[in-house]
Amino acid sequence: MNPSKTAELATPALLIDIDALEKNLSTMSTRHPDSKLRPHTKAHKCTEIARLQLSHSHTNFTCATPREIIGMAAAGVGSDFLLANEVLDAERLSALAKVSENVRVTIAVDSIETIKAAVRAGLRDVVIDVNVGLPRCGVAPELAGQLADTARKAGMTVRGVMGYEGHLMMVNGDEKRKKRVDESMTLLGRAAQDVGGEIVSAGGTGTWDMHDDTCINELQAGSYALMDTQYAELKIPFVQACFVLGTVISRSQDWLVIDVGLKSLTTDHGNPSVDGYDVLFCADEHTALVTKKDSAVALANIGEKLLVRPSHIDPTMSMHSAAWAMRADEILECWQIDLRGW
Amino acid sequence: MNPSKTAELATPALLIDIDALEKNLSTMSTRHPDSKLRPHTKAHKCTEIARLQLSHSHTNFTCATPREIIGMAAAGVGSDFLLANEVLDAERLSALAKVSENVRVTIAVDSIETIKAAVRAGLRDVVIDVNVGLPRCGVAPELAGQLADTARKAGMTVRGVMGYEGHLMMVNGDEKRKKRVDESMTLLGRAAQDVGGEIVSAGGTGTWDMHDDTCINELQAGSYALMDTQYAELKIPFVQACFVLGTVISRSQDWLVIDVGLKSLTTDHGNPSVDGYDVLFCADEHTALVTKKDSAVALANIGEKLLVRPSHIDPTMSMHSAAWAMRADEILECWQIDLRGW
Repeated sequence: MNPSKTAELATPALLIDIDALEKNLSTMSTRHPDSKLRPHTKAHKCTEIARLQLSHSHTNFTCATPREIIGMAAAGVGSDFLLANEVLDAERLSALAKVSENVRVTIAVDSIETIKAAVRAGLRDVVIDVNVGLPRCGVAPELAGQLADTARKAGMTVRGVMGYEGHLMMVNGDEKRKKRVDESMTLLGRAAQDVGGEIVSAGGTGTWDMHDDTCINELQAGSYALMDTQYAELKIPFVQACFVLGTVISRSQDWLVIDVGLKSLTTDHGNPSVDGYDVLFCADEHTALVTKKDSAVALANIGEKLLVRPSHIDPTMSMHSAAWAMRADEILECWQIDLRGW
Repeated sequence: MNPSKTAELATPALLIDIDALEKNLSTMSTRHPDSKLRPHTKAHKCTEIARLQLSHSHTNFTCATPREIIGMAAAGVGSDFLLANEVLDAERLSALAKVSENVRVTIAVDSIETIKAAVRAGLRDVVIDVNVGLPRCGVAPELAGQLADTARKAGMTVRGVMGYEGHLMMVNGDEKRKKRVDESMTLLGRAAQDVGGEIVSAGGTGTWDMHDDTCINELQAGSYALMDTQYAELKIPFVQACFVLGTVISRSQDWLVIDVGLKSLTTDHGNPSVDGYDVLFCADEHTALVTKKDSAVALANIGEKLLVRPSHIDPTMSMHSAAWAMRADEILECWQIDLRGW
C-alpha cells in the first residue's frame, strides 16, 4: 500500500510534521548557523532528517554510535563527525577508521583505555570528553590536560574538548538554569585551556540559548528537530514535530484503547500525551485513555485515529523502522529510520 | 564476525541463557502441557524460541499482532493461533485471512466494529474478548453473549471467550492474588456460558499456578520463558533467561558507565538490575552504576562486560534485531527477533 492520507496508515505509525520540523530547523540554524551547531543524529537516527539539517547549513554532526557515523557517511550527509561517546569495540572502531578515509571522524575519549582502542583501530582525531557535572562519561576537568598529552604522545590529534551538561537540561527556571550552565561551562573552559585544540563542544536543546557568553563554539543539540513533551515543558520555541498515530481499537463506557504502547514509544520521561485525554496507563501494545475531567468532548469512536505525543523522542524514534513525513493529513514521503543499532 | 564467546560480542547485545530458558519451558509445560498452555509470542517475538515451545508440546499460540501470526505461520511453527487483540486494519486482517487458509487463525473481538472488520477481511473464527477487570480491551461480561450472537449472525464461528486479568499479575501475596483471580474468572465463566464454544482462555505468568480450579482451559502466559526483574519479585519458579550484555566504557572514582541504555531496554517497570551494583540512572545509550553500599567489590574496569537484567522483557525484546543464545560464556547460536513490528 502507498498511503496518501494519514487516515489510510496502518497503526501504530510514526508521523513527522514536515512544516513543524522545518520551523524547528530554521529557528535553530538562524541562531546557530553552520558549524555553530553540530546536530545530534541520535535524536532521530534518520538520514533524511539529517539531510534537512545539512540544507540548513550544518555540515558537522554529532553521533552516539559508530553505526550512525557509518550510515551518515554512506548516505553522503555531512563531512565532519564527532562520536560523542566512548567506544571500545575493535571491530566498530576499525569500521570508523575506514570511514575516516573519506570524511573526518573524531571520537571522544575519557581514559587511557579509550585512547589505546582508538589508536589500535587506526583512528587519528579525538576530543577529550570532560565531566562537567553529569555523573556519566568524561574525565575529571583537572585531568583533561594530562589525558590530552597522553593522546598526543600516542600519535593522535587532539581537536579539543566536549562536555555535556545533560543534568541541567530540565533545571526549572531560565535564570537558575543559566547560572548552572555557566558554572558547568567554567569547568569545560578551564579544561579546554589545558587541552588545546579548536573544538569546545557542549550543550543541548534545553540550553540552546544559554551559550552566547560561554566558552563553547559548537552546540550539540538534537531533540530540537522533533521535540517531545518533556522538552516542551521548558517553553523553548521549538514545536512538536513527531507523533505516534494510533487507532481506537476498543471502547468502553468510560475509556478507550489505542494501539500505541510500550513497543512504539517509551515512557522513561513519563506517559505520552493525547489532546483532550488523560492517559490511564500504557501496556505493551495499548494505551488506555479517558477524557479530561473538564472536557465536554465524548470518547472517540472505534476506528478513529488519534495523535500521540511521545515524552522522550530519542528512544521512541529507534523503536520504529520508518516514519511518514506529512503535512496536515497528506502523506508526502516515507523515511527510513536507517541509523538504528550500534 | 562470528563470535564464539560472550566476551567477543559487540555490545549492547541481547543474551539468552539456553539452559535457563529450557528450565522455564519445562517447568511450565509439565504443569500445563499441550493445549493447556497457549504461549504468548509477544513476550519474545522470536520464532526460534517459539520452536522450543513447540518442542515442549504446545502447538497453539497466542499473538498480539498480525505480524506475529504471519511470521509464525511462515516459519512453520504452530498450527492454531489466537490474536488476543483487537485489529481494525483491513490490509493486515486480509493478510491474516490468507494465512488462515493454512493454519487456524482466531481473532479477538469486543465490538460490532471489530466483528465487521473481521467479516470483511474474510476471517471466520473469533473469540469474544471479555473485560475481567483490567481497564483495557474486552466487552463487559454481561454483554458478551449478545456480541457472540451478533458474530454468529454475521456468519462467524465463535470459538469461545478470552479475558486477561493483567491487573492482577503483580498483586502482592499469593492468597490475595488467588482470591482476586477467582473473582475475575467468575466473570469470565459466566460470559463463557452465555457465549458458548470450546475456548476459555486467560491468565499470565503471574497467575500461572492459580487456574487449576477456575473456568479456563488454556493459559496465555508468555514472560515465563525469559522472565524479567518485575516478575521475579513474585517468587515464581521461573528464572532469568534473558540479559542485555554491556561493556564498561567509562569509569570515574565513584561510578562506572555501561553502553546499555534506553535504546536497548525499557524502564517502564523500573530500572534494570546488575549484580553488585545500584543503578544511578539510565540514559539513551548509557547506564551509570555505583557499587552497592554494603559491597566490598571494587568498580569493574573499563572494557569489562556486565550482565543487565531487564525489568520488562516484552518491550526490551522488540528493541533488538537479534539475540545470542548462550551457555555459560559460549555462544551457541544467533536468533533473529523476527516477529517485530505490527
